[in-house]
Amino acid sequence: MATQDEVFKKIVSHAKEYGFVFQSSEIYDGLSAVYDYGQNGVELKNNIKRYWWDSMTLLHENIVGIDSAIFMHPTIWKASGHVDAFNDPLIDNRDSKKRYRADVLIEEQIAKIEDKIEKEVAKAAKRFGESFDADMFRQTNGRVLEYQAKRDALHERFAKAMNDGDLDELRAIIIDEEIVCPISGTKNWTEVRQFNLMFKTEMGSTADGAMTVYLRPETAQGIFVNYLNVQKTGRMRIPFGIAQIGKAFRNEIVARQFIFRMREFEQMEMQFFVRPGSEMEWFKTWKEFRLRWHKALGLGDEKYRYHDHEKLAHYANAATDIEFQMPFGFKEVEGIHSRTNFDLSQHEKFSGKKIQYFDPELNESYTPYVIETSIGVDRMFLSVLCSAYEEQELEGGDKRVVLHLPAPLAPVKCAVMPLVRKDGLPDKAREIVNELKFDFSTHYEEKDSIGKRYRRQDAIGTPFCITVDHQTLEDNTVTLRERDSMEQKRVRIEDLHSLIHSQVSLNALLRKLA
Amino acid sequence: MATQDEVFKKIVSHAKEYGFVFQSSEIYDGLSAVYDYGQNGVELKNNIKRYWWDSMTLLHENIVGIDSAIFMHPTIWKASGHVDAFNDPLIDNRDSKKRYRADVLIEEQIAKIEDKIEKEVAKAAKRFGESFDADMFRQTNGRVLEYQAKRDALHERFAKAMNDGDLDELRAIIIDEEIVCPISGTKNWTEVRQFNLMFKTEMGSTADGAMTVYLRPETAQGIFVNYLNVQKTGRMRIPFGIAQIGKAFRNEIVARQFIFRMREFEQMEMQFFVRPGSEMEWFKTWKEFRLRWHKALGLGDEKYRYHDHEKLAHYANAATDIEFQMPFGFKEVEGIHSRTNFDLSQHEKFSGKKIQYFDPELNESYTPYVIETSIGVDRMFLSVLCSAYEEQELEGGDKRVVLHLPAPLAPVKCAVMPLVRKDGLPDKAREIVNELKFDFSTHYEEKDSIGKRYRRQDAIGTPFCITVDHQTLEDNTVTLRERDSMEQKRVRIEDLHSLIHSQVSLNALLRKLA
Repeated sequence: MATQDEVFKKIVSHAKEYGFVFQSSEIYDGLSAVYDYGQNGVELKNNIKRYWWDSMTLLHENIVGIDSAIFMHPTIWKASGHVDAFNDPLIDNRDSKKRYRADVLIEEQIAKIEDKIEKEVAKAAKRFGESFDADMFRQTNGRVLEYQAKRDALHERFAKAMNDGDLDELRAIIIDEEIVCPISGTKNWTEVRQFNLMFKTEMGSTADGAMTVYLRPETAQGIFVNYLNVQKTGRMRIPFGIAQIGKAFRNEIVARQFIFRMREFEQMEMQFFVRPGSEMEWFKTWKEFRLRWHKALGLGDEKYRYHDHEKLAHYANAATDIEFQMPFGFKEVEGIHSRTNFDLSQHEKFSGKKIQYFDPELNESYTPYVIETSIGVDRMFLSVLCSAYEEQELEGGDKRVVLHLPAPLAPVKCAVMPLVRKDGLPDKAREIVNELKFDFSTHYEEKDSIGKRYRRQDAIGTPFCITVDHQTLEDNTVTLRERDSMEQKRVRIEDLHSLIHSQVSLNALLRKLA
Repeated sequence: MATQDEVFKKIVSHAKEYGFVFQSSEIYDGLSAVYDYGQNGVELKNNIKRYWWDSMTLLHENIVGIDSAIFMHPTIWKASGHVDAFNDPLIDNRDSKKRYRADVLIEEQIAKIEDKIEKEVAKAAKRFGESFDADMFRQTNGRVLEYQAKRDALHERFAKAMNDGDLDELRAIIIDEEIVCPISGTKNWTEVRQFNLMFKTEMGSTADGAMTVYLRPETAQGIFVNYLNVQKTGRMRIPFGIAQIGKAFRNEIVARQFIFRMREFEQMEMQFFVRPGSEMEWFKTWKEFRLRWHKALGLGDEKYRYHDHEKLAHYANAATDIEFQMPFGFKEVEGIHSRTNFDLSQHEKFSGKKIQYFDPELNESYTPYVIETSIGVDRMFLSVLCSAYEEQELEGGDKRVVLHLPAPLAPVKCAVMPLVRKDGLPDKAREIVNELKFDFSTHYEEKDSIGKRYRRQDAIGTPFCITVDHQTLEDNTVTLRERDSMEQKRVRIEDLHSLIHSQVSLNALLRKLA
């Protein structure tokens, strides 16, 4: 059986081969940690975005959208804390001249100790055969216990240093652990320095110089600085929310796992403004709603779990992640945070403007509290793709690769195929395309055998294939083949639109959430 | 009557007051030439994007989309010519320390001469009264003829200098014309220097330094560098097109006219790859199709005109603009360009990769030629907004401001209103909302008089208002009010969905184009 690592490699290569995700600037040998979405990827991504957007703005009469610019006034990032505190601790090796994240070097050291433990366990398992009790072995074997103690001590020391932002201590750990540079093999390390993750650029040009602005590292602040405008012009009454989808940028030093962590990525964030004191209730409501939103896609309820944060950011009083089971483990795809009134208060302070809500029921003004739901579009895309991918052995020894995409998210909704390229079947097939294409993406496919055409559509997750044969010319019926079951049934052409529409439109998905 | 300038000011203020467009970072006193889209603006913008996207990808089986990243390999902008030639000529005044675009200073000087001519004409018109023949006056008055000659000579000298990229000559014109700095009033000018319009930033961090990358100044290159991937993985056969919607960035020194020219903006571009020699035929086809696309919105056929380029960029062999009548004159909203094989050839040269298409019909390989259609989302938004805006005098002396937005583009499709807030009417109204809301944006409105509620919906362009009254409880009918005619008719609740859907869905618009 393929390991999870091998499966993930296959998914990445499938994503390229079938036009979902390409390495950015590939003909120029690529740009690190940046990806482009191909002809099928862009449709899948747009459908994910639409599902989120409609579930926020159509289903909730008290949620509206905005689209704020990537460029924002630089003081905003001072107020939000990003200028001062959005950093990675970096260290250079003087011999190789290579730069590393100090925290990642230490995490890798911890992982090495883990590996040693697992090797001991595997060795013993081989020696003892079927009678081997791994748990017992871990609790009693002297060498394993020693490794575990070492790991736990290192982990504790590391967590404290990170928590305190103690750069000298991070360096001390690297020295004490005798961590070497993977390139030079030496321990000749510089000091650890903080490196800000925001991209900077210069805007405008005057003889006095230009203004330094940042590419936003999150879309949330675009919502906070528009709070007053939206609340007043939209006559919004608390509780209400503002939703936004847009690009964000982080100059990650270590970017990993395909599109899971990129330097340019897309977020879907909703900030929900509530009365102070009611935030825990709303936090619970949104935590539940967001998980329902994920599960409604039908990827498998067991693939999700909450990860409640024990250690909270200074501005938060509750936080949880929704994690999804990727081939490389359970990973965060969405965060739900109770951010108190931290952001709005900071913008009051830095802008000098009053950001208050007059609550007619309480007859008083206050700075609203905020519940945030924040999801990465690209991570969501990856979770859908990974969970949809399957290599199937078919009856008769055939194989197929199929993407079990939720039908409303599939890039192409149906493919219409004349059985043969003659006898007027292509014309008939095109007639059907010309009726369906106005409402959903409909492909015309006439090349190669029907079997090959089915495989191609399976590989991009097309839920329905329609085959036009000689009987069609007689009675205006076609075969409708369903992707997952591969079952075919004979249906009337006039019924096609409503049959397909009921499965592929977002409407049904949204009704599940209402 | 209000001048066009006054009308435009009203539209800009309406756009803010009703949540269409806000100045970016407004509570921090704004960021120049950057705007945010509010709760209604984002929906109008998304609907425009969807109309374009669907008309490209759904209606044409040989056009697919992509979504390439904003960050691209820097050599791409060397290949495209942007690093060397995407410049504005800037000049500083040494006394005020202010920086100006040299070309804009000269254009303003030409406009001043125009003003003088118009003043002479206006003066004479006043003097001669009704018998005045303006054309005759322009052709005979000595002073006017003198101004005209001066203007023409200046214009010719300026055009030549721009064409030659002659910076010294631009400065010489400024000196000879005795143009002064509007701030200091002096003629103490520096040399003219080229200023590149691309935003730069540093990506990654190694001990050796980071890589300078640009924010893309156009989305087109993202299509060209993905040509091979899309053609091969999508099994595309020439002629075929790749469509993309995305942000682009230009560090404009002089940004003007609200969202017409911004530093951060959005483009919808489609590059259509054709056999060499067939490009003029395809240029014609796309020129016609794009105008039909605009006219299908029904904003008024007389508001559009072509502007064929006489002077072509070095890579183009045909180019035209589609101009729209804005309050500040006919302005380009879209460009259609025959770009030859310039871009693909440049990328072949700079990447060292072969970018060729094997044409099975010709049995030969070639570098495809390209027809580009390129439209600014924000300009399109502005053209729709300006043409939709009307202040109407109603019977009985009332006034209303109404946005005659094409129904498929309107941010809110219908508003459901209980006549009074009692007798179970609100519940009934909400029942209707809960049936309609899954398919289109439906507002519930119960505050203020029905008249006021109609006005609010008119001001954001909502095509339909549904009023629930006491009769509704008896016979399940409501009044359906149409925005433009203000006509009301009694309809059955069960017919509402299909009545509204037929008007607001993109389907009907797309069918017009098929």
